[in-house]
Amino acid sequence: MKYDRRRLKWNGWGWREESFSLDDPAAFWHFVREELGLDRLPDTPSVPFDAIDLPDPRLSDEQLHTLRDLLGEERVRTGDYERLFHATGRSYKDLIRLRTGAIEHAPDAVVYPETHDGVERIVTFAAQHALALVPFGGGSSVVGGVDAIGSDEQQGVITLDTAHLNRLVDFNPAARTATFQAGIYGPVLERALQKRGHTLGHFPQSFEFSTLGGWIAARSAGQFSDRYGKAEDFLLDARVVSPESTWSTPEIPASATGPDLNELIAGSEGALGIITEATIAIHPTPPVERTYMVLFKHFSEGLYAAQQLRQRDDLPLAMIRLSDAEETRFLLRFRSSSSASLGRQLYKQWLRARGFTDHPALMLVGLTGRPFQVKQGEARVLRICTRSGGAFAGTQSDWRSGHYAMPYLRDDLMDRGIGVDTVETATRWPNVPHLHQAVCRAAASHAAEAGYRCLVLGHVSHSYSDGACLYFTLVFPMDIGRELDQWCALKTAVSDTIVEYGGTISHHHGVGRDHQPWLQREQSTVPTGVVQAVKDYLDPQGTMNPGKLVP
Amino acid sequence: MKYDRRRLKWNGWGWREESFSLDDPAAFWHFVREELGLDRLPDTPSVPFDAIDLPDPRLSDEQLHTLRDLLGEERVRTGDYERLFHATGRSYKDLIRLRTGAIEHAPDAVVYPETHDGVERIVTFAAQHALALVPFGGGSSVVGGVDAIGSDEQQGVITLDTAHLNRLVDFNPAARTATFQAGIYGPVLERALQKRGHTLGHFPQSFEFSTLGGWIAARSAGQFSDRYGKAEDFLLDARVVSPESTWSTPEIPASATGPDLNELIAGSEGALGIITEATIAIHPTPPVERTYMVLFKHFSEGLYAAQQLRQRDDLPLAMIRLSDAEETRFLLRFRSSSSASLGRQLYKQWLRARGFTDHPALMLVGLTGRPFQVKQGEARVLRICTRSGGAFAGTQSDWRSGHYAMPYLRDDLMDRGIGVDTVETATRWPNVPHLHQAVCRAAASHAAEAGYRCLVLGHVSHSYSDGACLYFTLVFPMDIGRELDQWCALKTAVSDTIVEYGGTISHHHGVGRDHQPWLQREQSTVPTGVVQAVKDYLDPQGTMNPGKLVP
Repeated sequence: MKYDRRRLKWNGWGWREESFSLDDPAAFWHFVREELGLDRLPDTPSVPFDAIDLPDPRLSDEQLHTLRDLLGEERVRTGDYERLFHATGRSYKDLIRLRTGAIEHAPDAVVYPETHDGVERIVTFAAQHALALVPFGGGSSVVGGVDAIGSDEQQGVITLDTAHLNRLVDFNPAARTATFQAGIYGPVLERALQKRGHTLGHFPQSFEFSTLGGWIAARSAGQFSDRYGKAEDFLLDARVVSPESTWSTPEIPASATGPDLNELIAGSEGALGIITEATIAIHPTPPVERTYMVLFKHFSEGLYAAQQLRQRDDLPLAMIRLSDAEETRFLLRFRSSSSASLGRQLYKQWLRARGFTDHPALMLVGLTGRPFQVKQGEARVLRICTRSGGAFAGTQSDWRSGHYAMPYLRDDLMDRGIGVDTVETATRWPNVPHLHQAVCRAAASHAAEAGYRCLVLGHVSHSYSDGACLYFTLVFPMDIGRELDQWCALKTAVSDTIVEYGGTISHHHGVGRDHQPWLQREQSTVPTGVVQAVKDYLDPQGTMNPGKLVP
Repeated sequence: MKYDRRRLKWNGWGWREESFSLDDPAAFWHFVREELGLDRLPDTPSVPFDAIDLPDPRLSDEQLHTLRDLLGEERVRTGDYERLFHATGRSYKDLIRLRTGAIEHAPDAVVYPETHDGVERIVTFAAQHALALVPFGGGSSVVGGVDAIGSDEQQGVITLDTAHLNRLVDFNPAARTATFQAGIYGPVLERALQKRGHTLGHFPQSFEFSTLGGWIAARSAGQFSDRYGKAEDFLLDARVVSPESTWSTPEIPASATGPDLNELIAGSEGALGIITEATIAIHPTPPVERTYMVLFKHFSEGLYAAQQLRQRDDLPLAMIRLSDAEETRFLLRFRSSSSASLGRQLYKQWLRARGFTDHPALMLVGLTGRPFQVKQGEARVLRICTRSGGAFAGTQSDWRSGHYAMPYLRDDLMDRGIGVDTVETATRWPNVPHLHQAVCRAAASHAAEAGYRCLVLGHVSHSYSDGACLYFTLVFPMDIGRELDQWCALKTAVSDTIVEYGGTISHHHGVGRDHQPWLQREQSTVPTGVVQAVKDYLDPQGTMNPGKLVP
């Protein structure tokens, strides 16, 4: 199987054989030192696999025997690599813990059911034996969503890896729907659809290492969400195994039969049950996909243009990605340090000739559709951008594959003492500039007080008629030996600010363990109580993914 | 106040002073007799108001005194007209009960809070006194959604009429949002927005006599839902008073913080709490709104065209309304009987010249947008329709106001022994023809077995990328003296068929009391259990709208 866990890194991103390719490493590391005001970068490699001390497994031989009877010998794993690979997700915090060997929990067994019935058998087994059951898709959670933990009463944790639930169940072009088993990975799902002339159009940065079920459970957003929607938008119906029972949502386009339970499955984070199959909205593959670059003198002008674009109803928009001045500056310096593609001097001249400051804001606009549609859209987009002071700066090709490579770079940076974390939020348009400024200020001043320099790179990544998602990348020198404390303080400073300034604590990463404290503050207590009431009904013993979504 | 309940019919549709205007009554009644194969039509007037015997009110003087203290003297009503007006909704079944005086329940008091705080006070009062509390917007429910009933343990029923919660709270054109108190009526809401250059675009047939809160609570769909969405789509956030607490959903465009509780408020049918305020997505008023008529030789060709139109992403579609052959025939005969606008002979000649059968299917396509957009859309729509064998048959003006008048006609028909009921459902495209045929057959053959002729007029009223809503009007001679039994048997035959053939028991009318038996069969028991668990948490005593949505 392609996604055999031995082929994937246990302490970093993606394939073990792959890493970020830098054209000119010396120039790149010089750039990093300069950006963070550091004379030298330390060597901070990960501890080796053999040095990791995993907690002792707690399942009895009899329990393991039963599990093997339920699924077959090959579908139950208890080896150290499997246990470590499934111990946690892939957030900055997770990587710190993995790379320093501070592993406090790991599943006692990992199981790989291939069928809905197999999942049912495991859920029943876990509930009967008072074990915790952690659903695991691609394991790319950055909010502690797959941490292999149980409650104090539970005597063991099983991780249910959905990687073998990877089949196309039904393809229905007349209804523009396809049904897949939920463990299917992004590239496999897209290949199955594209072979049939269709696409889901869901391309999150984790695309290569995340699954349909994970996207739905965490309300994922792909780069082209402006066209194809978030996971809750493309989810049409699903089949779920909860300890209470197997259930599903009806195969209908819309209804007035009470609350829409698809919206409970989306965002359920494995805490209400395991999604085994999902029917999703598909689209004929658009013949044309183009990405335009537009530069604005100021981020605020770009924001106004983004809002104007998004509120039109006659554009084949797939993406609006607007970097703030700091991210634009960083990206252009990064590119000229890591590749020869952009002449920095030439770019400065280009800007000056147009009366721009040195720190403009870069917008990428993606259009998809039929040739005529994109051509007509292009003219409209550029007209709207120009009216807001934007200048067209060319098109970009193959933007997505470069985007997918970025998480690999995080591993290289962490090898040299550089921390990278991301936070994301959303708010209505009038509040976007305030929230943006507040988060930038909070992160930078927190770092300054703590005695280090933190780069805060922000962009609008997804947008709506009523507002937008703001996405921030934080780059900072690791406080070696105190990495987790440093991260925790920075995360707290930023998250407090997000909630205080009216943003949601997560637009598309989820709640997991990490966002729970702020969720309580963002919402009144009632919504949390509602979700808890649903969990108590569907999962009365608290078998499913304990400690995630609800406390 | 404009919507003073004394100005509205207690036993029929709309304003007391208004009725359906027939150009040529004699021709119309001749047409009706012919359609139903009847020699004569009986006189079946409603009993007069004074003949109605209401159940004795059960609130104590002390309770009434407290209520008046809480809201003010004028805001608490106990008169017979108020009690009767609020006894039930406006379904065919309700009208039968009202017109025959078979009133088994009525609220013991009707209260009219003007503020969120006022609603809170009433909810607390009702919970404390173990009374049932029935939220009432426009009262246009056709599924028993406002029936003034309590459980056996409850010693009284208060109806909370939201008509005075009718203010614009916030208008935010930058975010394309507006916040209203939830009791605002359709025309008042639209006027407030249109004065400001915007529209909600929500035009259900009940538009003149239904409210924002009612639309949300019942997941209403307007005629232009293809452009503006159903209530659950335009709802962005809301404020709700539940017995557990007042709560609200966050003011954000999208989130990944667990289940989306807006989707629980939409479809809550007053059983989970009372919506006091809602923020909705608004749109600049489109300068052009046009309705095109296209005739197809067969309903199936029209269905194929409807699907093609809906699955395009470059049309400014507001509406696709495709009548089946029987409804098309009926509508054209009805029009030539009720007005002089269409020459029947001329129409037949027109059809024959195009090689059409006598019973084609009529599609209305509504486009809205900027002039260029509509012009470009028009060309595309007609091309797609023509490719499916459609023939353009002109444009229609002022389609909507004619549509709003139709419910008045039901009262006239009921005065002459003719029953009219509607049922609606939705399914995915490949199943639309099967479901359509099954429902038509079930209704007609049930009636035939029972010894009467039932006209079954069907159309596609709302559509989606993956499917469509089918809407049926049933016209039949009332079985005088056995009206409720007759209705119940017909409703059962049709509803059984809907569920058996994979449709939802309601696309936009709701569950109420009437659809509960089929909801249980449409869904597994788990979804109902989830909703019950939420109700038990938000409304532990079962104060809110007992017997609706969940048993």
